[in-house]
Amino acid sequence: MRVEIWSDIACPWCYVGKARFEKALAAFPHRDGVEVVHRSFELDPGRAKGDVQPVLTMLTRKYGMSEAQAQAGEDNLAAQATAEGLDYRTRGRDHGNTFDMHRLLHFAKEHGRQDELIQILYRANFAEERSVFTEGEDRLVQLAAEAGLDADAARAVLADPAAYADEVRADEREAAQLGANGVPFFVLDRKYGVSGAQPAEVFSQALTQAWGERSPLKLIDQGAADACGPDGCAVPQN
Amino acid sequence: MRVEIWSDIACPWCYVGKARFEKALAAFPHRDGVEVVHRSFELDPGRAKGDVQPVLTMLTRKYGMSEAQAQAGEDNLAAQATAEGLDYRTRGRDHGNTFDMHRLLHFAKEHGRQDELIQILYRANFAEERSVFTEGEDRLVQLAAEAGLDADAARAVLADPAAYADEVRADEREAAQLGANGVPFFVLDRKYGVSGAQPAEVFSQALTQAWGERSPLKLIDQGAADACGPDGCAVPQN
Repeated sequence: MRVEIWSDIACPWCYVGKARFEKALAAFPHRDGVEVVHRSFELDPGRAKGDVQPVLTMLTRKYGMSEAQAQAGEDNLAAQATAEGLDYRTRGRDHGNTFDMHRLLHFAKEHGRQDELIQILYRANFAEERSVFTEGEDRLVQLAAEAGLDADAARAVLADPAAYADEVRADEREAAQLGANGVPFFVLDRKYGVSGAQPAEVFSQALTQAWGERSPLKLIDQGAADACGPDGCAVPQN
Repeated sequence: MRVEIWSDIACPWCYVGKARFEKALAAFPHRDGVEVVHRSFELDPGRAKGDVQPVLTMLTRKYGMSEAQAQAGEDNLAAQATAEGLDYRTRGRDHGNTFDMHRLLHFAKEHGRQDELIQILYRANFAEERSVFTEGEDRLVQLAAEAGLDADAARAVLADPAAYADEVRADEREAAQLGANGVPFFVLDRKYGVSGAQPAEVFSQALTQAWGERSPLKLIDQGAADACGPDGCAVPQN
């Protein structure tokens, strides 16, 4: 079974939702038969690469919140994160464009390091003092290396704006086709969708349901197959 | 859409069937939306690691063929391979245990190099004079490096018999659960199965059919989702 998770590094509910999903997955009896793939979704794709703001400034300017409302929202999100055992800084976080991080996550996927990198990026964005947005490529290269990726190769990816850009856009198109207009968005075997950071129990139920409904294969039968088995290989007649 | 291909390096029809499938995939309009994953299947799992025989000897002893029959079978398989543009040596090939190659393919998958490695292993086994079975780990390490993998890491995988062994066994269990008793065996979105090295047209038809039937998601709805979208993040009420 395959679970695809659309998310953005700048999305607090994605950070929390991933932890809730993983709690459910850890308790799922068939967890070894579940493959997890991360997909790209940008919350703020129109923001220019260098346009970085403190989160609170973004919340007040973009959504018209008062500063008190914005801070209360952050405090509440931090409480949800803490309940899942996650660190969450409610002061001094930045908001910016995440396209480069998504490109890097596709590079990491090719090297089997996607889950490591997304976890490190979440932690860097939500729990660490240093910004993931204001230090240019150096910071992202360092985080990629922490995830086990080759630093020079990661730097080359970041330096080439076309690298893995198509893969990010393809994920985003697919999210739209699947009806996701917010994240996190979980898709189980392309059959069930779960929207949002639901409680772990909801993910447990979804895993159980999707697992139970894995359907038997329909065999496309075109007569005798040219195949090999324990009794040898079919030999073509000339 | 995802296509999983169960196969064995020692399986001539897998070598031919992969080329036929790839011909169909190259012509498939939605090929960029198709992900290919290779799964393990051993034709001769009971054979001890060091027990290597010439293919013709194996065919005569294991299946009771005459030497002429065995050679005619190899010649016929070579003709099928040649028709797909593949090289195939009909003399001097070896047969042996492929478990280590499957372990290495799982290691390659983790590093995004699985398709490269399987193609190199097929070529080494079917088209090159040097045996993939008699030179110990050095030969496999060299082939892994050709596939872009780190040679030292590949050597470490081969030196540890437990590395990726569970992954190989899990693939084989899954093949049995899906009803595959021979290879190659192609599974499209866990919905359609295609057994054997079918003509490219059959793969084209299967791709078209499975693509057209990708079903809309069933949303597991648990009320208001804790999610972030273009209009901001849902804020929990305390």
